[in-house]
Amino acid sequence: MLAALLNKRTKLVAGLMSGTSLDGIDAAIVRIEGAGPGSRIEMVHFSSYPFEAELRERLKAICSTDQSSTPDVCGMNFYLGARFAEAVRLAANDAGIGLAEIDLIASHGQTVWHLPTDDPVHPYRVRSTLQIGDISVIAKETGIVTVGDFRTADMAVGGQGAPLVPYADYLLLRDERHGRIAQNIGGIGNCTAIPAGGKPEQVVAFDTGPGNMIIDQAVLELSGGRLVYDGGGAWAASGSVREDLLAGLMAHPYFALPPVKTTGREMFGKAFAASWIAEARAAGAADADIVATATAFTARSIADGYRRFIFPDMAVRDVIVSGGGARNDTLLRMLAGELPEQQVHRSDAFGIDSDAKEAIVFALLGCHFVHGVPNNMPSATGARTATVMGKLALP
Amino acid sequence: MLAALLNKRTKLVAGLMSGTSLDGIDAAIVRIEGAGPGSRIEMVHFSSYPFEAELRERLKAICSTDQSSTPDVCGMNFYLGARFAEAVRLAANDAGIGLAEIDLIASHGQTVWHLPTDDPVHPYRVRSTLQIGDISVIAKETGIVTVGDFRTADMAVGGQGAPLVPYADYLLLRDERHGRIAQNIGGIGNCTAIPAGGKPEQVVAFDTGPGNMIIDQAVLELSGGRLVYDGGGAWAASGSVREDLLAGLMAHPYFALPPVKTTGREMFGKAFAASWIAEARAAGAADADIVATATAFTARSIADGYRRFIFPDMAVRDVIVSGGGARNDTLLRMLAGELPEQQVHRSDAFGIDSDAKEAIVFALLGCHFVHGVPNNMPSATGARTATVMGKLALP
Repeated sequence: MLAALLNKRTKLVAGLMSGTSLDGIDAAIVRIEGAGPGSRIEMVHFSSYPFEAELRERLKAICSTDQSSTPDVCGMNFYLGARFAEAVRLAANDAGIGLAEIDLIASHGQTVWHLPTDDPVHPYRVRSTLQIGDISVIAKETGIVTVGDFRTADMAVGGQGAPLVPYADYLLLRDERHGRIAQNIGGIGNCTAIPAGGKPEQVVAFDTGPGNMIIDQAVLELSGGRLVYDGGGAWAASGSVREDLLAGLMAHPYFALPPVKTTGREMFGKAFAASWIAEARAAGAADADIVATATAFTARSIADGYRRFIFPDMAVRDVIVSGGGARNDTLLRMLAGELPEQQVHRSDAFGIDSDAKEAIVFALLGCHFVHGVPNNMPSATGARTATVMGKLALP
Repeated sequence: MLAALLNKRTKLVAGLMSGTSLDGIDAAIVRIEGAGPGSRIEMVHFSSYPFEAELRERLKAICSTDQSSTPDVCGMNFYLGARFAEAVRLAANDAGIGLAEIDLIASHGQTVWHLPTDDPVHPYRVRSTLQIGDISVIAKETGIVTVGDFRTADMAVGGQGAPLVPYADYLLLRDERHGRIAQNIGGIGNCTAIPAGGKPEQVVAFDTGPGNMIIDQAVLELSGGRLVYDGGGAWAASGSVREDLLAGLMAHPYFALPPVKTTGREMFGKAFAASWIAEARAAGAADADIVATATAFTARSIADGYRRFIFPDMAVRDVIVSGGGARNDTLLRMLAGELPEQQVHRSDAFGIDSDAKEAIVFALLGCHFVHGVPNNMPSATGARTATVMGKLALP
C-alpha cells in the first residue's frame, strides 16, 4: 500500500487543520506533484466544519490545568479522530470526489497543550506538546493512509515544535526580488519573513502573540455568549482604541523575547482575557472600545514584532495575511496603519486561499513524510537539525 | 529507509513493554525472520529497567480521574518517550550490541487510560484507549524507526483494543495435539486459550481479572511503603486464606461477564484495593492473611474464568504462565491447586522467558506493521476485522 503511494507522482491529499481558536476543522483537498522543495501544489477544494458550542467549551476545559483529566484526553483523542475522519468524508463529498480517490490524509490534530520549556515546579512536565485526534481512528474510518502529529518530532530534535508553517510559506511565497512576510492570524498570530532570493536558513519566523484569541474571548464575554467572533471587525470599528490600555497590554514580557519563540492559550487564553477585560471595564472602557483595543493589540503586537526582529535586518515589501484574522477588515486596516512602508495583502491575492493556508501546509508536510523528506525548518523552530516530522497509520 | 528495512529478511527488533503494574520497562531484543504467521523469533537479550518510586506515584496519579490533567499527560508522554529510548540504549549495551544494529523498535507505551465503552455521564469520554511514551521521541533519540501505539487501531475497527498478546501466543504456543492456555499475570491477568490444532478464529482470550495489582497494593500498604511486591510469594505463604473474604471478592460482577472482556486499573486499582483492605482489617484479618487472600483471589479468578468460559468447550492440558506473577511461587501453587486436571508451567519451559513474553510480542507486532501484515486477533478483541495496528515514526 505504501509502495503504491510512493510510486504515484501526483497525489490527492486531504490536509486537516484544527487550530488553537477551537473554532472547527479546516479541510483542504490538494493535488501535490512530486515531493520536497520542487513540489507543485494545486488546491482542489476547501471547506470548514465549525465545532458546536458545547464541544468548544469542552475543548477549552481540556486546554486548562484545573478542568482536565486523563480520561478527558483519552476520550477526546478518539472523538476528534472520528470528527476529522468525518471532515474528510464531507469535504470529498462537497468536492464531488470519491473518498477512494484520496491518496493520503495529513492531519495537524488539535493542540491541547504546549510546554515550550520544562516546568520548574512539576518535574515530569518536561518540554513537550500534545496534539489529539487519533490518526489510527482517521485511517481506519476513512480507509486512507493518514499522517499526523508532526510537532513532537521537531521538539524531539531540540526545536520548539512550532511554527511549522514557515517551511510551506517558504516553498509557496519566496520571491527573487522582494522580501515578504507571511502573517497567519489564527488563535495565535505567527509570521514567516523570507528575504528576497533567500535560502531556507535565512527565514525568520516566530509567533507574534495573540491573533484572534483575545478578540474572540472579548466578543464572547461582552455579547453574553451570543457571538463567538467579531464578523468583519464591525464591532471593533464602532469603538475607539484606548491607548492607555493598549500600552499596558504591550508591556507583556513576551514581546521583548527574541525569536525563536512560541506562545499559545497557556499565555493568552481565557484567564488572561478575562482578567484584562475586567481591568478595562474598571478603567471605564465601553464594550466597543474593549473590542477595538483587543483588535489593535493584535495589530500592534504583530507590527512591533516586525520592527524589533525583522526590519532591522531585512527589507520587506509585502505582508501577506492568512487565517481567520484576514477576514477582520478592522484588524487589517489597523495593521496597514501600523506598517506604512509595506503593502498588506490577503493571501488570496497570491493564489493561496487565506482560510485554507494552514490545511494546505499540512497536506504538503504529510506528503513529505511519506517520501522521507525533512519537513521542519530549523531556522524557525530552533531545532538542531532538519528532520522528518509526523507519524503514519495504515487504513 | 523503510525500503531498506523491508528488504531485510531477518531483522533485529527491540520490543518494549511497560505494563499496568507501573513497575518499569521490559526490553527484549529479538531476531525476527520473515513476517506474518510463518515468522521465526529468537530472543537475543532481555532486561528490565524498574521505575523509581516517585515516577510510579506520578504515573498512578496520571492514571486517576481526580489527580491528572492535560499538562501532566503532555509532559509524561515526552518524559516516558525519553525513558523508552534510554531503555533501548541500555538493553543494546547490556547485550553487547551496537545501537545501529537494531533495525526497528516496537513500543507498547504506557497505558494511562482505557475506556472499553462510552461513558454515559461524560459525552466526550467515548470508548477509547490512551498509551503514552511518544514514538517520535523514541525514534529521534535512538535514530531507529519506531512503531508503537497499537491498541487504538483495534478499537477503531470495533475491538476492545485488548488483549493483543493472543495473536503472538497463537503464533508461539499453538500445538497440534494439546489444548493450551497461555496465562499472563501482570498488573491484570489475561489468558489465551488455543484448542489443539486450532485456527486463529477458535482462540478464546480475555482478561481474567486482577493479576498482581491488588497483591502489590496490599503489600505496599501493609508494609508501610517498604515493599512494592511480595517477592516469591513469601508473605502470602505465611498467611491463611480467609474464604469468607475471598467469596466476597469473587462476587464482583466482572467475573460473570462473558468474553470478549477487558479490565484494568479503573476497576481493580488503588481505590478498590484500599477499600477491600479496610474491609478485611475490619473483619479481623491479619496482614499475612490479607496478602494470602489477595493472592488466592488472583488464582481463583483465573481458574473461575477457565471453568466458566473455556473448559466447557475446549480440552486443555497445559497452562503456561508468564509475567511477573510467574515468579510468585505461592500464586503458582494456588493456581495449580485450583486446576487439578491441568499442568501448570512457567513459560520458560516452552522457550519463552516468562518475564520477556510481552516485550517479545510487541517486537513481533511491530515487525508485522512494517510489512503491512494484520496483527490483531478479532476473536480475542471483538474487532470487526483483522487490521494492521500501530503508528510509525521515522528517526
